[in-house]
Amino acid sequence: MSSRPLVIADIEYLAAATAQERVFVGETIHEDYSHDEMTEYGSAFPGAVVEVVSTEEIQAVMRYCYQNDIPVTPRGSGTGLCGACVPICGGVVLSTVKMDRILEIDHETMTVVCQPGVLLMNLAKACLDEGLLYPPDPGEKSATVGGNVMTNAGGMRAVKYGVTRDYVRGLEVVLPDGRLMTFGGKVSKNSSGYSLKDLLIGSEGTLAIITGLYLKVIPSPRLMNSLLIPFNSIDACLDAVKLVLQSTEIPTTIEFMEREVILDAQEYLGKDFPDVSANAYMLVSFNGDSKRDIERHYEYVAETCLGAGATNVFISDTEERQDSIWSARGAFLEAIKSSTPSMDECDVVVPINRVAEFIAYTKTLAKEFAIRIRSFGHAGDGNLHVYVCQDALEDSVWKVRCKTIMDRLYAKAVNLGGLVSGEHGIGHAKRQYLLESVGEDQLALMRGVKAVFDPKGLLNPGKIV
Amino acid sequence: MSSRPLVIADIEYLAAATAQERVFVGETIHEDYSHDEMTEYGSAFPGAVVEVVSTEEIQAVMRYCYQNDIPVTPRGSGTGLCGACVPICGGVVLSTVKMDRILEIDHETMTVVCQPGVLLMNLAKACLDEGLLYPPDPGEKSATVGGNVMTNAGGMRAVKYGVTRDYVRGLEVVLPDGRLMTFGGKVSKNSSGYSLKDLLIGSEGTLAIITGLYLKVIPSPRLMNSLLIPFNSIDACLDAVKLVLQSTEIPTTIEFMEREVILDAQEYLGKDFPDVSANAYMLVSFNGDSKRDIERHYEYVAETCLGAGATNVFISDTEERQDSIWSARGAFLEAIKSSTPSMDECDVVVPINRVAEFIAYTKTLAKEFAIRIRSFGHAGDGNLHVYVCQDALEDSVWKVRCKTIMDRLYAKAVNLGGLVSGEHGIGHAKRQYLLESVGEDQLALMRGVKAVFDPKGLLNPGKIV
Repeated sequence: MSSRPLVIADIEYLAAATAQERVFVGETIHEDYSHDEMTEYGSAFPGAVVEVVSTEEIQAVMRYCYQNDIPVTPRGSGTGLCGACVPICGGVVLSTVKMDRILEIDHETMTVVCQPGVLLMNLAKACLDEGLLYPPDPGEKSATVGGNVMTNAGGMRAVKYGVTRDYVRGLEVVLPDGRLMTFGGKVSKNSSGYSLKDLLIGSEGTLAIITGLYLKVIPSPRLMNSLLIPFNSIDACLDAVKLVLQSTEIPTTIEFMEREVILDAQEYLGKDFPDVSANAYMLVSFNGDSKRDIERHYEYVAETCLGAGATNVFISDTEERQDSIWSARGAFLEAIKSSTPSMDECDVVVPINRVAEFIAYTKTLAKEFAIRIRSFGHAGDGNLHVYVCQDALEDSVWKVRCKTIMDRLYAKAVNLGGLVSGEHGIGHAKRQYLLESVGEDQLALMRGVKAVFDPKGLLNPGKIV
Repeated sequence: MSSRPLVIADIEYLAAATAQERVFVGETIHEDYSHDEMTEYGSAFPGAVVEVVSTEEIQAVMRYCYQNDIPVTPRGSGTGLCGACVPICGGVVLSTVKMDRILEIDHETMTVVCQPGVLLMNLAKACLDEGLLYPPDPGEKSATVGGNVMTNAGGMRAVKYGVTRDYVRGLEVVLPDGRLMTFGGKVSKNSSGYSLKDLLIGSEGTLAIITGLYLKVIPSPRLMNSLLIPFNSIDACLDAVKLVLQSTEIPTTIEFMEREVILDAQEYLGKDFPDVSANAYMLVSFNGDSKRDIERHYEYVAETCLGAGATNVFISDTEERQDSIWSARGAFLEAIKSSTPSMDECDVVVPINRVAEFIAYTKTLAKEFAIRIRSFGHAGDGNLHVYVCQDALEDSVWKVRCKTIMDRLYAKAVNLGGLVSGEHGIGHAKRQYLLESVGEDQLALMRGVKAVFDPKGLLNPGKIV
């Protein structure tokens, strides 16, 4: 990627194509634009930040930048965890946060039409207000839905409902050269040529910029209940997960968490968790329409778990109780982050029956390298979040040690038949691990695909491929 | 696509790389290999048919053909409806029907590992025998699962469970030049670079040849019931579908059918349908684990439909009753086919709330052109199958009239916000309509993608792009 510094004429064009007050340069660029949620992967500033408000503005910016060989990095809320929105080649950061309108909630086709900058929490609420559920439920509710689509975000409800990909019916996008295209629409099936829509989902803003979305929603179940189930060991907990998954009643969520992470979250939130006596916990939730339905489901799960070594079963059927559990679960990442000066994350996915082995391996590494490693994750789909913490280690020691541990964690995941990212993506931070896991030949195919959409390599350069 | 005729040395190589008795040339090639289920789109013979039994054989065949510029058309059971497996450029037809082994049914990860030539009905049965359900349920049970993946087949249960794409966790494929690659695996989430797996799904054998599949299965619900609901008009029936879809109880299947199609099927099968008094029928099915659950679901649907103009509700809770309905439904295509010397099919998908408008349009056309048009389809997902029948029309008149009608049907679908194929694909027969619906720019992207995987254009040439 060859890139030239922006000049005054560029800024003038961008301001004319959008609006003076939505173009930021030099010192007016907020520090946030130099990184995402993982500040460790950040610190590159763009030549300009442009906040767009319409598809036409995106087209104008892209056409200009394409003609003038200026790299463009699209950005939503910047809540990613792999540096995908960090402008490592400079150029323009194109922010879509101001394109935050929900254009239509169509009950007849069960489709929401919206702009890319709508926040996940606002989308969820707008749907609920109309009796509908947008099932994907990534932990970070202030992410934009455009960003969610671009990483194929997963989240807590994936066990029952699947991931973001499963709810994208159509995408309107602008290509790197400024052309506008629509893939799919308000339809629920599609076998009309190559599924370029599915290729775009999870492409982390490297192939095109989303300007509009057609999202599938479902009727909202009326009730939700959760079970918090303590176990003496993480192994017993993860063994029980496999049994729960084989029942015909598919829970909405199956999470696992260890005591240490809960303690971190308690301290961070200043709120008590219902129970901290056990080493490991399974958190299972159900939704449905009748109390009786849900009760039948959770009775089955409770019995299964008690038969598999659970020491108790806490039923959370009041809002207060559920809140204390879910607010802790929601705070895990922030709690770990605030407990250490620096950390690194890995977001692997392994076959569900290898989760225990992977977690055991993190403990071996923690001991071998005398380092604190915290993990939690989506036990029901094998997607784990593992955090290696710097704590009191000196920077130079930390960097080497962390790199070694990450190398070994990713190698282990691949060795267990897993993949290097379950839901956070590759960005620029995980490129080495993507290459190592899929190999040079497969990466060459991805590079080929990239060149089809972006022959000049100007859109979000340095990411994924 | 430049292609040369096969010579004796080619045949000798193919026989050496596979087995003499599995290579067919000249007169030994069965006529079936010149067409798929729509004989109208067929009549091209290959230079040779090779029945492979292993991944290594596929690699050897592909390497040789790639080096020698010989086109290869992969083929499963040949049950497609768009001519995708017709070797219109000659060369080799590579049949995977002998690769029909289910290698593993893994209950812990809920994954079936199998070869591409496994028939859908055998996969379904093997799963059911172990208490599992492979949810996709395309009408043609003798299709191979490899073929299903390559068209992203939909089927009856898509309303509740989605389509084939949603159940493909991983694919092992051979590229046109013979290299072997695996995308995904026994994992349930994936954000690891561009989803080439999803690009391959629905690519109709034009990018790579599937050699192995990792398919998601779910615990099998214990019970299934169906409702057959008569209406005085198709409009009333389709209006009621929209109401049913908005309830929180999502049925497994929502089909619609008109009396004429049922009469055709009755005659074809020589079996009586439970009721033929009404003009239109909705067929709704539910599955679940308890009789009470299912009853609650269907009581709601029955009441909704009766309130929306249904003239009756027939409950099929015995196997015999269900069989009489579902065998009729399964015979629609064959029944129409056998009632006319020739026909043409369109498999459009439109937003669910435009189904009635599309069906009304087929009736207008039938009247305008004095031609018989039959339709049925998946009311619950907007995917319609429309058949234009030649009947007594002279060939020359029929060809012109049929083409005009098809042009107008596809244009109408696109005009209603729909797409040209919901589940049957493009093949070579629907290329014009794909181009007209997505436009030259989008097709150019598809051609670019094709060139990345198949730079010489040798794999299933003349299809999709």
